[in-house]
Amino acid sequence: MALIVQKFGGTSVGDAERIGAVADHVARTREAGNEVVVVVSAMGKFTDDLIRLADDVSPTRPPRELDMLLTAGERISMALVSMALGARGVESASFTGSQAGIITDTDHTRAKILEMRPDRIREALDDGLVPVVAGFQGVSTEKDITTLGRGGSDVTAVALAAALHADVCEIYTDVTGVFSADPRVVAKARRLAKVSFDEMMEMAATGGRVLMLRSVEFARRHAVPLHVRSSFTWEPGTWIVEEDPTMEEAVVTAITDDKSEAKVTVGGVPDKPGVAAKLFRELADQGINVDMIVQNTGANGLTDISFTVAKTDLAAAGDACNHVKDVIGALEVTTDDNIGRVSIIGAGMKSNPGVTALMFETLSANGINIEMISTSSIRISCVLRAEKVGDAVRALHTAFGLDAA
Amino acid sequence: MALIVQKFGGTSVGDAERIGAVADHVARTREAGNEVVVVVSAMGKFTDDLIRLADDVSPTRPPRELDMLLTAGERISMALVSMALGARGVESASFTGSQAGIITDTDHTRAKILEMRPDRIREALDDGLVPVVAGFQGVSTEKDITTLGRGGSDVTAVALAAALHADVCEIYTDVTGVFSADPRVVAKARRLAKVSFDEMMEMAATGGRVLMLRSVEFARRHAVPLHVRSSFTWEPGTWIVEEDPTMEEAVVTAITDDKSEAKVTVGGVPDKPGVAAKLFRELADQGINVDMIVQNTGANGLTDISFTVAKTDLAAAGDACNHVKDVIGALEVTTDDNIGRVSIIGAGMKSNPGVTALMFETLSANGINIEMISTSSIRISCVLRAEKVGDAVRALHTAFGLDAA
Repeated sequence: MALIVQKFGGTSVGDAERIGAVADHVARTREAGNEVVVVVSAMGKFTDDLIRLADDVSPTRPPRELDMLLTAGERISMALVSMALGARGVESASFTGSQAGIITDTDHTRAKILEMRPDRIREALDDGLVPVVAGFQGVSTEKDITTLGRGGSDVTAVALAAALHADVCEIYTDVTGVFSADPRVVAKARRLAKVSFDEMMEMAATGGRVLMLRSVEFARRHAVPLHVRSSFTWEPGTWIVEEDPTMEEAVVTAITDDKSEAKVTVGGVPDKPGVAAKLFRELADQGINVDMIVQNTGANGLTDISFTVAKTDLAAAGDACNHVKDVIGALEVTTDDNIGRVSIIGAGMKSNPGVTALMFETLSANGINIEMISTSSIRISCVLRAEKVGDAVRALHTAFGLDAA
Repeated sequence: MALIVQKFGGTSVGDAERIGAVADHVARTREAGNEVVVVVSAMGKFTDDLIRLADDVSPTRPPRELDMLLTAGERISMALVSMALGARGVESASFTGSQAGIITDTDHTRAKILEMRPDRIREALDDGLVPVVAGFQGVSTEKDITTLGRGGSDVTAVALAAALHADVCEIYTDVTGVFSADPRVVAKARRLAKVSFDEMMEMAATGGRVLMLRSVEFARRHAVPLHVRSSFTWEPGTWIVEEDPTMEEAVVTAITDDKSEAKVTVGGVPDKPGVAAKLFRELADQGINVDMIVQNTGANGLTDISFTVAKTDLAAAGDACNHVKDVIGALEVTTDDNIGRVSIIGAGMKSNPGVTALMFETLSANGINIEMISTSSIRISCVLRAEKVGDAVRALHTAFGLDAA
């Protein structure tokens, strides 16, 4: 008998019919002899409706009240899922984040979990019930209702799986798993049966849309196997697990792409200590998250520093750079929001020195210019013109032997 | 400076515009130098929408899960009201029933308040905030979310007013107060400036639709003055207060009518001890609430027992009576769902012996037959044919001098 945490996202509980399908699946999982804990998001676009209401009553969204408002969403879906289980003869009870013992800090709208005290969930399991837990929400150390921010329901599911020592955390969604590339970009993309935590983290960080970096990190830290699968077809999906040292690793597992960022270049900076520190302190003070950073030193003692930020932060980043431009003695600040990033990811890359060369050759053969490069031990990312991203992903997918037969 | 609890029902917070109007009024009340605690119901028909969803996913409505579902409604309205207050510069914070310290028994969907621990509400007031509290909900001694049943938001408001020693509990609704009769029945009905708790309880018990008996009882027990008023016109409405012994009392304050009940008659019952006990024990065991009971003994040693029940309980009541018919030796059981009840209510009735006579004369003069009579010290109720109810109310309203000039 296994203990399985099953998390269902907004589209999976989008209406009464979908909720019924979820309940059928939970009932099947129980009949197969497993214990099940269900975690649910709010129904479909319900959260958007609530935000629209909030905008109608107030020009601002006080974070504490926004959390109170939004958490109504999971309360509805979890009660409905629990009722649907009851209608199938599966005894169950729903629990809010607070009742499930999800204790967070007081950072409303993006709270972090401080502690898990899932005593009531464990009791419910011991009583033979299927606990249905609200995703995305917790209670703060000040006893206020909090939400966990984007991807928060996945975090709830992983945190519960970790605290309950579950055998697997199943993340049900509207796709059938994790793919070797975005199937909308690469027609021949394949579903991956298995991905390592490290690979999945790199994918999540570079444009993979299925899981948020945060929940993968959490799962890796607590060694919770994840299984990403579809709540529409119910077929097995993609397992995200610890790297298996006995297995031969694919050199490249997946190609990701990301067009959500823009580039800032601070040009003609004197190449001396402290310059980069001043620049990035200023950006940090303005609350701007910087992603890739590339610096090249020229022969004349001057250097260019380029970095990427979310497009929504581009104007603020440009202002911040201009603000310190004279202090650091830079010649110019330029911004560019017409870029895209393509990344190749694979745990086998570590022991295969030819990967970088093949990537650059492939891009070059397709007439694609590389503007920035950054690497980790299992990833290579290139910044390109935005309009070249699709071609680059397809060419690399073929070059690294990922195309489906 | 007064402490005022203001309760807003579903129509009062029905959309963003109504919520804005509520926030304006709360801001005005604060500007006038008062402390305010707000209690809100779910928005408009939102609760009905949730029940429809529940019916779509399950043929049954498990009470614990139904409570979890329905309490999402106030969570939404209270967060929105709090945001709207913030937009008007009024600092506020919303609180669930649980956070407001409303401790109930475990009787889901119709829980009773066991204890009030409004520490967080008092702290919020001390911090200069306007607490916005979810009506209708509490947390049970088992730490499950409960609802207080019909009229539950009023009960929340009254209980908070009592626990906080508020100066008044204002119940805002879509009518301008309590009337001398239902204005849809009597065109000349007048709004009453003041009604005693005793009168209001009799009115609530006999068809008055503005307040539920339960919240009036609670207010009387804790001596919380109620002020029923409109959230559309904001004009002063009706005060419900302790009887003022120094004031001359109106003989008759109001006429109520009720067509929601039906009559059961158990005829030809031997007039001996224990018969009524057996009959009403059977009804109680079937969970049927009996309202009026009238028994008349005839000359032949046989008696008829008639009683009224809610129309929805009529079939079950008939079955229960037939079940004990032979045991108690009754000759026949008849049911009648075409009745209505008209009641006249007035604290001054106690010292005015002519009231009963005038009521019966008035009905008789209008050709209206009386089928059952029951009285309390400040009320006389008559059961009539349903189609005669309107005429009876209008005639009595005129006869007792209640018509508006």
